[in-house]
Formats: sequence, C-alpha cells, structure tokens
Amino acid sequence: MPLIPIESLGPSTFTSPLRYPIELKHGGFVPDHLGIRHSTEVDFNSTDGKDLNLVFEKAGPRAKLFFNPSEASAAIVTCGGLCPGLNNVIRSLYYELYFNYKVAQILGIRHGFQGLNPEQGMPPVWLDRKVVSQIHNDGGTFLGTSRGSQDPKVMVDFLQVRGINLFFGIGGDGTQRGNQAIHNEAKRRGYPLAVVGIPKTIDNDIQYCDRSFGLMTAIDKAREVIRLAHTEATGNPRGIGLVKVMGREAGFIACGATLASQEVNFTLIPESPFDLDGEYGLLKALEHRMNDRGHAVIVIAEGAGQDLFEPSEDKFDASGNHLLSDIGPLLKGRILEHFNRIGEPVDLKYIDPSYIVRSVPANSEDALLCDALARRAVDAAMSGRTNLFIAPMNSSFAHVPITMTLDAKRRVALDGWFWNSVISATGQAPQFRNPRS
Amino acid sequence: MPLIPIESLGPSTFTSPLRYPIELKHGGFVPDHLGIRHSTEVDFNSTDGKDLNLVFEKAGPRAKLFFNPSEASAAIVTCGGLCPGLNNVIRSLYYELYFNYKVAQILGIRHGFQGLNPEQGMPPVWLDRKVVSQIHNDGGTFLGTSRGSQDPKVMVDFLQVRGINLFFGIGGDGTQRGNQAIHNEAKRRGYPLAVVGIPKTIDNDIQYCDRSFGLMTAIDKAREVIRLAHTEATGNPRGIGLVKVMGREAGFIACGATLASQEVNFTLIPESPFDLDGEYGLLKALEHRMNDRGHAVIVIAEGAGQDLFEPSEDKFDASGNHLLSDIGPLLKGRILEHFNRIGEPVDLKYIDPSYIVRSVPANSEDALLCDALARRAVDAAMSGRTNLFIAPMNSSFAHVPITMTLDAKRRVALDGWFWNSVISATGQAPQFRNPRS
Amino acid sequence: MPLIPIESLGPSTFTSPLRYPIELKHGGFVPDHLGIRHSTEVDFNSTDGKDLNLVFEKAGPRAKLFFNPSEASAAIVTCGGLCPGLNNVIRSLYYELYFNYKVAQILGIRHGFQGLNPEQGMPPVWLDRKVVSQIHNDGGTFLGTSRGSQDPKVMVDFLQVRGINLFFGIGGDGTQRGNQAIHNEAKRRGYPLAVVGIPKTIDNDIQYCDRSFGLMTAIDKAREVIRLAHTEATGNPRGIGLVKVMGREAGFIACGATLASQEVNFTLIPESPFDLDGEYGLLKALEHRMNDRGHAVIVIAEGAGQDLFEPSEDKFDASGNHLLSDIGPLLKGRILEHFNRIGEPVDLKYIDPSYIVRSVPANSEDALLCDALARRAVDAAMSGRTNLFIAPMNSSFAHVPITMTLDAKRRVALDGWFWNSVISATGQAPQFRNPRS
Amino acid sequence: MPLIPIESLGPSTFTSPLRYPIELKHGGFVPDHLGIRHSTEVDFNSTDGKDLNLVFEKAGPRAKLFFNPSEASAAIVTCGGLCPGLNNVIRSLYYELYFNYKVAQILGIRHGFQGLNPEQGMPPVWLDRKVVSQIHNDGGTFLGTSRGSQDPKVMVDFLQVRGINLFFGIGGDGTQRGNQAIHNEAKRRGYPLAVVGIPKTIDNDIQYCDRSFGLMTAIDKAREVIRLAHTEATGNPRGIGLVKVMGREAGFIACGATLASQEVNFTLIPESPFDLDGEYGLLKALEHRMNDRGHAVIVIAEGAGQDLFEPSEDKFDASGNHLLSDIGPLLKGRILEHFNRIGEPVDLKYIDPSYIVRSVPANSEDALLCDALARRAVDAAMSGRTNLFIAPMNSSFAHVPITMTLDAKRRVALDGWFWNSVISATGQAPQFRNPRS
Repeated sequence: MPLIPIESLGPSTFTSPLRYPIELKHGGFVPDHLGIRHSTEVDFNSTDGKDLNLVFEKAGPRAKLFFNPSEASAAIVTCGGLCPGLNNVIRSLYYELYFNYKVAQILGIRHGFQGLNPEQGMPPVWLDRKVVSQIHNDGGTFLGTSRGSQDPKVMVDFLQVRGINLFFGIGGDGTQRGNQAIHNEAKRRGYPLAVVGIPKTIDNDIQYCDRSFGLMTAIDKAREVIRLAHTEATGNPRGIGLVKVMGREAGFIACGATLASQEVNFTLIPESPFDLDGEYGLLKALEHRMNDRGHAVIVIAEGAGQDLFEPSEDKFDASGNHLLSDIGPLLKGRILEHFNRIGEPVDLKYIDPSYIVRSVPANSEDALLCDALARRAVDAAMSGRTNLFIAPMNSSFAHVPITMTLDAKRRVALDGWFWNSVISATGQAPQFRNPRS
Repeated sequence: MPLIPIESLGPSTFTSPLRYPIELKHGGFVPDHLGIRHSTEVDFNSTDGKDLNLVFEKAGPRAKLFFNPSEASAAIVTCGGLCPGLNNVIRSLYYELYFNYKVAQILGIRHGFQGLNPEQGMPPVWLDRKVVSQIHNDGGTFLGTSRGSQDPKVMVDFLQVRGINLFFGIGGDGTQRGNQAIHNEAKRRGYPLAVVGIPKTIDNDIQYCDRSFGLMTAIDKAREVIRLAHTEATGNPRGIGLVKVMGREAGFIACGATLASQEVNFTLIPESPFDLDGEYGLLKALEHRMNDRGHAVIVIAEGAGQDLFEPSEDKFDASGNHLLSDIGPLLKGRILEHFNRIGEPVDLKYIDPSYIVRSVPANSEDALLCDALARRAVDAAMSGRTNLFIAPMNSSFAHVPITMTLDAKRRVALDGWFWNSVISATGQAPQFRNPRS
Repeated sequence: MPLIPIESLGPSTFTSPLRYPIELKHGGFVPDHLGIRHSTEVDFNSTDGKDLNLVFEKAGPRAKLFFNPSEASAAIVTCGGLCPGLNNVIRSLYYELYFNYKVAQILGIRHGFQGLNPEQGMPPVWLDRKVVSQIHNDGGTFLGTSRGSQDPKVMVDFLQVRGINLFFGIGGDGTQRGNQAIHNEAKRRGYPLAVVGIPKTIDNDIQYCDRSFGLMTAIDKAREVIRLAHTEATGNPRGIGLVKVMGREAGFIACGATLASQEVNFTLIPESPFDLDGEYGLLKALEHRMNDRGHAVIVIAEGAGQDLFEPSEDKFDASGNHLLSDIGPLLKGRILEHFNRIGEPVDLKYIDPSYIVRSVPANSEDALLCDALARRAVDAAMSGRTNLFIAPMNSSFAHVPITMTLDAKRRVALDGWFWNSVISATGQAPQFRNPRS
Repeated sequence: MPLIPIESLGPSTFTSPLRYPIELKHGGFVPDHLGIRHSTEVDFNSTDGKDLNLVFEKAGPRAKLFFNPSEASAAIVTCGGLCPGLNNVIRSLYYELYFNYKVAQILGIRHGFQGLNPEQGMPPVWLDRKVVSQIHNDGGTFLGTSRGSQDPKVMVDFLQVRGINLFFGIGGDGTQRGNQAIHNEAKRRGYPLAVVGIPKTIDNDIQYCDRSFGLMTAIDKAREVIRLAHTEATGNPRGIGLVKVMGREAGFIACGATLASQEVNFTLIPESPFDLDGEYGLLKALEHRMNDRGHAVIVIAEGAGQDLFEPSEDKFDASGNHLLSDIGPLLKGRILEHFNRIGEPVDLKYIDPSYIVRSVPANSEDALLCDALARRAVDAAMSGRTNLFIAPMNSSFAHVPITMTLDAKRRVALDGWFWNSVISATGQAPQFRNPRS
C-alpha cells in the first residue's frame, strides 16, 4: 500500500506565512506522511483488490514552502465549456493567495489557453479585491473561456516573461492535458513552475475525483426541468415529458436529477445501452407505462443511445470531444411514430434545457466545494508540488498526478448504489424488461 | 480490523423479490462480507490509530431476507424538530417497500412517538401511493412530529397488535434512544421487530454519520440570509449584519454557510470558545474590521458563547435538550454598547431566520441523500437486521449500531479542513488575535 | 359615455349569504351603477376619442343574487396550453363558492372541453377541500387540459343532466368562443346557466384585459433564461445568446423579460417587422454591436419574423391556432452564415426554454391576480350574469361581454411606454438603423 | 376636470436627442395636452365625486427640452431604508441619461442626504457603465443610504458648485420633503435645478402612487415565509405560525402576501383595529379555529394593534418615523397565555423575517417598474419640470406635484376589492366575529 508520489519542484525552503494553524491546538499544517485511501470498501473474503490499495497524498497547507510568497506570482486560467462554480474557484484562489499567503501578483488569463498566446487572445488582467469580490454570485467565468489548446512553448514563454511561478489551470481532461504540456515544457527549460489543475467537468467524468464542482448545481436545475416535464405530462391526456440533459459519456446528471426529483420513469445513460424495439425495448416498456398510468417522464443523457444512429464519419469539436448525434429528436420521433402506428397517439413535450443547467451560479454545495479545491490548490502550489490536480476524495482532499486522470474516464458504476437507486426509483428494469406495473 | 457486528433477528429465509440486481451483469446484491472504513486517512508513520480501524457493514440490498415480503407490515415515524427531507424519506421508504419489496401494509404514525400511544396521539394512517406521491416537494413532515418519547411497553403493544415487523424511526439522538428502547422491549418479548433508525439532525451532530439530511438545505437558506445581511451591512454607514443560525453543539451550518457565501468576517461556533473583551476579544477584532473596511458580517451558531452568560439553573425541552440562553440579543447588545462607548456608533441589523432554514423542502443534494438512506433502511430491515441506523460513510452507506451513536456527538474538528477553510475565508484568527487587515 | 351592458339570467331574488360586507362600515357590495373606464387617458385638445368612452360594469359581490346558494351547483373547466396560475384559479373558485357562498356541489371537468363529452373524456370529479387545498403551489392544472372544443349540445346536455347552474371556463379566445357556444345553447333551451369566462393567455393578447394571469411568471422565468444567455455570451469570445420566448401574435413576454433583465440588445416581436439584410437590417446592426462590444443577446418572440419564411400552406393546431414556422433556427442559421461570410465567426448559443416558462407555479403577482379573478367570477355568476369574462382593468376588475374579446387581439402598442422602454433599454432603433454605439 | 399643474423651470428650448420616437409611425413623444385620470371608477348615479376629477399630466419623453443634454449634469441619491429595486432605478437613470439623452456627467451621492453635506458624508462618485452595469442584480443600493435630511442651503451649495441641473431623489415621504426643500432653496437662488422624486416605500403608502417598487418583491418573500409558518403549524400538534411583516401604517404587504399564499387564517393590519379579548376578540376566534382545524397561521403588520400597548412617550427615528411598539412578542405572549389559561396549550412558532424581505434583489415585476419610473423621471427633468414625483397610475405613468404626497398617506381601503379578498381568503370576519367554521 504505497503512497502515489507527487512531482515536486524541489525542497521546501520558506516558512509558511499562514498564522492560523500555528495557533490551533492540534496543528493545522498537513504533514507529508498522511494519505487518503481512494477506496473505503473492505472485502473480508479477499484482501488483494488492486484498486483498494491506492493511497493519495492528503492535500492541505504545509508548514514549509518552496516559494517565497513575497516574490511569487500566480496565473489563473479557465478553459472549456461553462460550468457553475468557475467564478467561485477564481475568487478563492485569489483570496487564498493574496490574503493568506500574501502573494501580491495574480494574473487572470482571458478566454482559456488563447489568452496565453499573445497573437490570438486578449491581454491578461491583474486581479484585485475590487474586481473579484462579487464574482462568486454570478454564473460563467468573468475571465472568459474558450476551447482548444496552444503551443506549449508559446504558453510557457508567456508565463516566463511575466515571472509566473504558480499556474492554476481549471478545466476538463483537455485542459489537464494542456496543464501537463505546460509542466513538461517548463521542466524542460528548468523553469520552476508549479502547475496545479482543478478538475472541471459538469459531467463528473474525471477519474479519482469523487465529485466535480458544478455537478450538484446542474442536478438542481435538471430537477427543476424534470418537475416541469412531469407537470406537462400529467396536464395533458396521454402526456409524455422527454428531457435531455448533459452527460456525454457519463450519466451522473441524469441519475442525480432522477433521484432528486423521483418523478422519472425511464433514465437513459451512456453506460447502459438499450434497445428501442422488440419485446424488451424501450418503446414496449413505455407502452406498458402509458397503458397503466397514462403519463410518463423520460430523462436521457446526451451521450446515451449513440449506437441507435447510423455510423457516420467521426467529427470533433475544438476541445477534441467527439461530436455526438442528437439523441433527443431521434427519440422524440421514434416515440411519436410508435404510438401513432399502434393508433394510440401521445402528447409528447420535448425539453432540451441545454445551457440553462450550466450557466447558473453555483449552489451552496458547489460553492463550498469550489472554495475548498481552490485553497487546497494554492497550498499544493506554494509547497512546490506540480503536475497534479486536486480531488475531493471521500471526506477529504487529495493530490492526484495529472497523468492518472488521462487514462480513463469516470463512469456511473452499474453495480453501485447510485444506479441501483435509479432503478429502484424509476421502476425500470435494466433493459426495460419488467417495468413497474 | 474487525467488522462492527450488527444485531440480527435470525437467519435469512426468503429470497429477495428484487428483480433488478439479478439481471445486472456484475450483480447488485451486497454480500455480507463487505465493509466500509470510517476513516480513509492513512498515516505512514504510525499504523495503529484507534479510529482508523473502524469498519462498518456495507448497506444495500441482500439476496436473502428474514421477512417474507408478502406477510410483512411496516411503520414509519418522524420525531423531533422539523428538518428538510422528512417527507422525502417517508416517500422513499413507502416506494421501496411497496413497489420493490412488495410489502403491502405500511402504516404512518402521527406526530412522533405520541402516535404510538393510543391515549395521547392521533390514530395512524395507512399509506398509499396517492397520499405520498407529491409529499417530497413540501417541507415539514406530512405525518406530523412531536418531541419526547413514550413508554416502550405501550409503543411495542401498539406495534404488536397491528402486526408490524419493520419499524423505521426517523429522528435525532433522542429518537434513536427511543428506537433502542423499542428494540429492547420487542426483543424481551421475543417479538421479531426490525428497528432501523434514520438519523435526522439539522445540526449534523450524529457520530459516524458523515452528513445528515437537511444540513445542506439549511446551509443554502442560511447562505441566502447571510447575503442579505451583507447587503444591509454595506448599504448603511458603519453597517454590521449579525445572523444567528441553528447549531446547538456543532457549528456545521454556520461554517458551511460561511464557506458557501464567502461574505462572513466572523464565524462563531460552539466548538471554539471566544472572549468578547480584552485585547484578543471579539469586540476589539470587530473594531479593527470596522476601521479598516467600514462594514462587517458576523454569523453565530445558537450554541456558541454560552459561557458568556451568568450560570443559571439548567432547563430542558421535551426532547431532553438543554435549553440555551439566547446569544443573539446578548451579542447585539454588547456590540452596540461597545461602539457607543468608544464614540463610534454602528448600524447593526440582527437577523434570526429561525424556522426559515428548517421548514423548507429539501434541496437536490438532500433529496438524493434521503432517497438513498430510505432505500438502504428498507434493505437492512428486510434482511432482519435491527437496532441499527443507516449512515452515509465516505462514498457509500453503512450499518451502524444505534448504541454507538449515543456515546458522543459529532463536532466540527478544529484541526480539519472545514474549520481551516472557515478561518481562511473569514480571515479571523482562531481567537480573533490578528484579523485580516 | 354609456355602460357596456352585460347579459343577465333574470332579476335578483336571493340575499347574498356573504356576511362580511354587511359589517363593513362603508359597505362591501358593489352597486350596479358603478363602472370602470377602460382608458384613463385624457386629451385636453380633443374630447371625442372613441375608445375613451368605453365604460364596463365594475365586478364584485352583489347584495342580491339570482341563484339560491343552497341549491346551486358549479362546474370548472381548464382548456388550452398550460399557464401558471390555473390551479390558483381553480382553488379560489372552489373556496369562494364553498366557504363564502356556501355552494356545496362543485364539479371539476377533466382535460378541457373533452371532459364535457362522455364519449371522449374522463369522468369529472367532485371537488372537496382536501383535494384542492394544496394545488396552488403546483404548476399546471390538476384537472388536466386539452385543446379543441366539443359540440355545444353535448356539453350542455352534460351540464344540464348534472344540474349545473354556474359554469366557469378558463382559457384563451378559443375557450371563450366555446363558453359563448355553451351560453347560446343553454339560452336556446331556456336553461338558466351562468357562463363566466376567466381569460387565460400567457401571451397576454386578450382585448380589454389589462394583464392576463401567467404573464408575469413567464416574464420571470424568461428573465432567468436571458441572464444565462448573457452569461454564455460574455463567457466566450464573440459570444451571442439567442433566446426564443413565447408570443404568437403579441410580444409582451419578450418585452417584459427585456425590461426586467436589462441585458438584451435586440428584442424582436410580431408587432414590429424587421429586415435581416440590407443597410438597416438586423444582421448589419448586430455586426456593429459585435464590433463595438464583442457580445450580444437577442430575444425573439416565436411569432416574430414570420414574413421571413417562404409562404406555405396554412396549418392549424387543435385550438385553431395558426401553426408558426420556427423562427429560432432560421435566425440562428442566418446569423452564423452572415458572420462566417464576412470572416468574423461568432459563438452563438441558442436557447429555446419552451415549456420551462409555462409549467411553473404562479409567482406572487399572478397568484394574487388569479385569486381576485376567481372570486369576482363567482360574484358575477351568482348574481345571474352570463356570457361575460372577468378582466383586470386599471386598478379594478370589470365585466366584459365575451363577444367583445373575439373581435381583435391585444398587441404591444408601438407608440406606448412599454415598447418605448424596450427601445430605450436595448438601444435598438425601431428598424435597427442606429443601434447604440 | 382640470389638469393638475406641474412646476416648470422655463420654456423648452432644445430639441430632444432621442432618435427613436421620431421614427415611430405614430410618434413617441408625449404631447403636453395629455392627462391621466387618477380614478377610473364611474358612478352613473352621481357625477360629482371629488376624487374622480383628478387628472395628472402624463409622463414620458417630450419633443422639446429645457436643458441642453451636452451641457447638463445629473445627481442621484437614495435615502431611507433599503428597498428592493434601488439599484435598478439607479442603473436605468444612468442608462437613460447617458445613452439616450447623452448627458455625460452623472454623479452618485453616497449614503443619502449625508452625501450632500461635505462635512458629514463620503465624497460622491462619478458613474460610468462599468460601475453600474451589473448592480441591478443585487439587492440594496450600491450608493449606500442613510436616514435623515441636511440643511437645504448646504445641499444646494454642494449641487451648485458641481453644476448639477438634474436631481433625482429616491425615497419615502421624508425624502420627498427633502427634495422639496432642495427645490425651494434652488428656486430662491434662481438656480435652474430640476428636482424629480421617485417614490420609494416598501409599505406602498404614498398617495397618488398606485404601486411603489419593492412591494411585490416584499410580498413574494413574505409569501415564502408564510408557507414555512404553515409548514410549522401543520407539522406539530396544535401548531400556530405567527409571522410579522413590514407595514407601519399600511397593510399592503400583509394583505398581498395573504392573497398570494392563501394559507393565512388571520391578517391583522393597521387600518383595521381589533380586540384581543372578549366574545368577538382575536383570541376567541383563534380558539374556534384551533378547535375546528387544529392549526392556524396569523400574519400581522408591524403597525397593527398599536392601541393594545400602554400609551407611552412618543419616540422617533432619524427619518422622523414614529417608533412602534413591537406587536409580535406581545401577540405571541398573549396567545400562549390564553391557551395555557384555558388548559389547551398550543405550539406557537413566531417568525420575524425583518430585513429578509427588503434586502433581496427586485423581482421581475419590480425590476420592470423601476426601469419605467427611472426613464420617465429623466424625461421629466430634461423637459425642465421640477418639484414633482413620478407615479405609476392605472396603466400609465403620471407627474404628481411633491406637495400632494405630503398631505396624507395611502392606506388599504377597507371597502375595496383588496381587503375584501383578504376577508374572503382568510375567512376572518372584519372583527373576528364569525370566523369560518
């Protein structure tokens, strides 16, 4: 059971200026010999589960720092699609750096990695209290964002010229790849740059990150929309509410909103393929439901049912994401067609809330999480750690090497309590064989 | 590293009627040899931390049941103060029992343990889908609640007469004590009654329960109120917003709302005593803040600063809770007096949102948690487990013997990341020695 | 300046059972000689404006009634698309009838006029306090709704068989036409049936009705969506947020949401045609805006810009509404094409909140309005008035003959303060000639 | 039926720079010969009602202006207690002045009239787009506020020195008095200063102003609180929810929230005195209610029941408001005492939401109103009108001389539909004689 090692820029040299932990009775600095288990499950019949042995370094303030706060400079960048909580992360990074560590120079990069390329992006802004003090109450990111990366040489030039030592890159796996490229280039040059990532994915699909910020807010908003779909479905004779939510490869939003609302009858996620036709297909299950109860609500993640489309040439967006076919209209069309064919038309209302669930301000749960991630990220960078990201892990926070997140994406476990609860709450059988009568 | 044992009514006899896990590729039933660690921290310098060794039984559906669903009957009771999510728990208990386990008879007890005493309370109601289908969208509990317990003999008589085998008691530590008494009395009689508790404490102060339902909703509402206090404080010359929130012995709501809002300058909780007067007292620290910034927001948990009152005779409410002195008005008075005395009056707005934070419907996070707790509680009871409560533990759910929760209450750890973040976010020194300038 | 006459079933015979107005010092019953002016504008240069002379009967409780409350029976029906406030109207009709007038028999018709045809619809439900007491907190209509009318003879048969004397039809102009047909048929038979309409149109396009319920709630929700569009537009380089809102022939929601949000740059409504191309077209104006400010928000009512489509065969829905071409995707396509063509691509986010703005519960303003409309409707019906609808007029409520609403639809006045404010707030010129620089 | 005259600084000289109305087909400038009736009621039996003859000048943009926009300067001040919408008014004043009239110099006065006295207040700020663009999404006033007035000579000195010609004073009747004093002093000096008031009173108690901004938002928030009180009342055996809301001399918030929530059983307002004791007193009526239904909700305006206190010396706050005795605790005490005395104790939850209802951002209805008031105020000032305030009147906006508002306060009319609806919705008799059984 070894500790996953974290790359470091060098030995600690400076004493932390943080006053508070010193005064705490039991200390507040996290010693380097503490780790956090990734898995908390114990199997008393078998003690050699591979995954059970992963132990990550515990995040938190260190007594000794690599950087001298009075000389360090920081830069913050937000990349990819909007996600509730970006402004909260920016603000807490600023406050922790400026007020607690006394780092005076903090640069805000505009519109993602574009802003690190002087030929493409807008010039950066120096942050101060006035400019960030209220941003956490707004959705979006006041720095702006964009998709795609830039030449690592250009980006490190940009940072080196401005004397930046602490780099905080907030984004999804594309961004973490960019962070790693920046780290590699700086390392090649021997330039001491602490690169710390903060995982951002509204889909919650980053490995070794228990819960990414924005997810709960998205679930909140999706729940609201589901309730409206339920209102529409029950308000009309033979009403069906069909709601498409985000979730390219992972169905966390669809599942979470289902459990929060308890008014969904079919939850379709990328992890669990399904048939439309046939005795055990969705349409037959929906037919049973309509005959039994007269109304239904269906929630589908955007990445579900992609195998129902004709294979076509692959396309990608600027972030390198595979462009999905739009499952919402396909499903709507097939349902209408089915019920027309059997002579029992339905009144289907299709709702695609799209940006509505991601541009809102962070709710309390996410606001709290963003604050903790940001402060732990500053702790890690100031101690000279690099090429890592901060992850909430069980009831703590851990340092995870960026490399580890690039291997695979997180998925809803089909044998875990979460999906199990979805099946209980919807009454759907995994392949719609025996919907609740 | 032994597994904490759970009391059982006897050997499993019946096959679970749950269809779904059987069809899942990787299985969905939880085998009895799985446990969940309470602590996930690993200390590589020392491997014998006492607490580190606690492993609880993993909650979830069992393949074999003690009760025959077609013959079992259940009862549900909600006790103590209102808390967001009570209706969600009732509804998911009903749906899991009725639709998944096919338990047909489910009794709703009115107004807490009172309803188990025919001489005191209202008669119970048989639950059906119609009556519970929409309750999760409302705050409060549609069954009603009350404080205080009843004679265990009377209560078990009530249950035995009606043939109840599954008893779900939702409430705080007083209620868990009542659950235990019911269990003991049933056991004495040899009456097979599965008593499963669901912990309810808006203060989040139950041991071995990572997060109790209602907490996040309360934090949400408290955050809203804090923002208003901030608006008042900044809208008037030398404005101070003082907000009292719930938290008798634990400051989780105060801390969580502080971190979610980021607009608090002093967070006062029961776990961290403070002085009002003196060089390092709150009043001097507040004076610095007002001189530097011209406005301030203070959040105080109702149980904080109780040592500032003259000692008086102890009084208790019907739940056995120690009656607290009202710290809000005392603090308000002392602050006004202090600033009047030094000739620099302040404009203090005191807000006591009281019931406003606890009577609201559950937010998504709590709704999701309530659903999971309820379904896991049914799983436990159907398998014949008893005298336990269901607790969210790390990223899973566990069975905890009721006895274990009665030993001590959960507190905000003064050396953990949560309180540490509060100190970072407020800039307050632990004893107000060096407020952020 | 004559009073617009209202049809009556006959002379008043019974004394109102309403206790309260009698006890009020200044009386509470409305005498028949009071009227409400439709227009409050006075032109001191000209005193013969045609419209200025319209005076409608004042609504409110009458001291003498046509129906004997102890013998009367009522029916309530909700028709057409969902609209916030339907449940509030149903509930207040019930409460006013049952508790204040002591009418004991109140029938709820299911799913619109369908429910008045035994061969098509579901059987009606007798309402009681238990069933309606909480409905006002939900969106939709618990009675259900549907589009389209039925044979008046069948409907009056249905009502006559059940001895219904008071008929409340809640819906848009199609429904008011149906109400009138029911009235005519009952009158032909000499069957004393008071037919009172309550105007329902989320588009606010009913003549002589100052404000229809649901409008303000829809504006509220549309404002939320516009704010998110603004967040998306400013979060991305050259971002445009395009929001489509309801408004088939009248732009009240688009205008109201624009004024409530103040973050819209172009508001497009059916009443004000516009060009896309040319020097004074929308695209050129948008180009200026993007060059000047780098981001823009456009709000378009669904009925705006219909002349931009190729003429095609007319189609109608079951309510007789002309089926509109979908302006949202057309506009999105044309904007993207334009900016691609000039080599300055934009990042356009299109949001169609659709049902999200109409299935929510009524906000306070609408809840209050619904209550007043419902109680005034009962007053009118009990006094024997028929073939009318209740309209909020200036700061009061009036009786308007149904016939008068069928002549024309209400529109946003292009010379009034409302549209004038929209032009001020957006900075758009009426035909986009001189957008704010 | 004469037009109420408005004071003017002199003849119009400059052509309005407003482009848009010129292009409108039917014109957009308001000619001076248009008026708005205050009352819309017509009594066909009597044509000489005194109040019926009031006709005010219609507000809106004039084709000719008194001030040259390119030379004019403006100042904005917010006074008195916080009220939802203050920031919206400031922002729309700025946008209308700067973007539509091209007035370049706009001064924000800090913390009310204090900011017009250099010896007392903070220096003013010049407003620009950046500083005001987002304020409308926040509650409070970003300029700050305070109570009380200053020497008119000092204030006019302040304005004259800075060359201010357009003065916008937002506040209640104390502020309108201050506005008038500023007008009088400027007039005495012959200094051309257009003083335009915008009425601000969350209590809605300003004469000739149909609805003041902030009221609907306050009703919204009060409704939320009432729902929680209802949840508490029904959740406990013999539960009573008692809610105190704002309303010193007028019960509009209490009545509006009652009608919006429909869950109130007793609504107590300053306009309608009541007894506590005796056969027809509140306590006896409440006793009936508790026996019949087992729970109750009471809403009381802070100014109600003041005659129930012992007479004491009059005290006033800095705004000159009479200090009220706190009716909430008195009522709570008397209710508890009564039910204890008769041996049927109740579980009363008292909620005083206080600042919670007034520090929130404006809802859509108020946001829309604030925008219209602000733009009409600029129209009036630019045309040289002075010593007036802008009032929403029926479905339009009017100019009202400040003098007219100082005569009397607006009240809930006890013989109007609003109070009548409250009596219907609560079932309370005016003096609690016959509460609904």
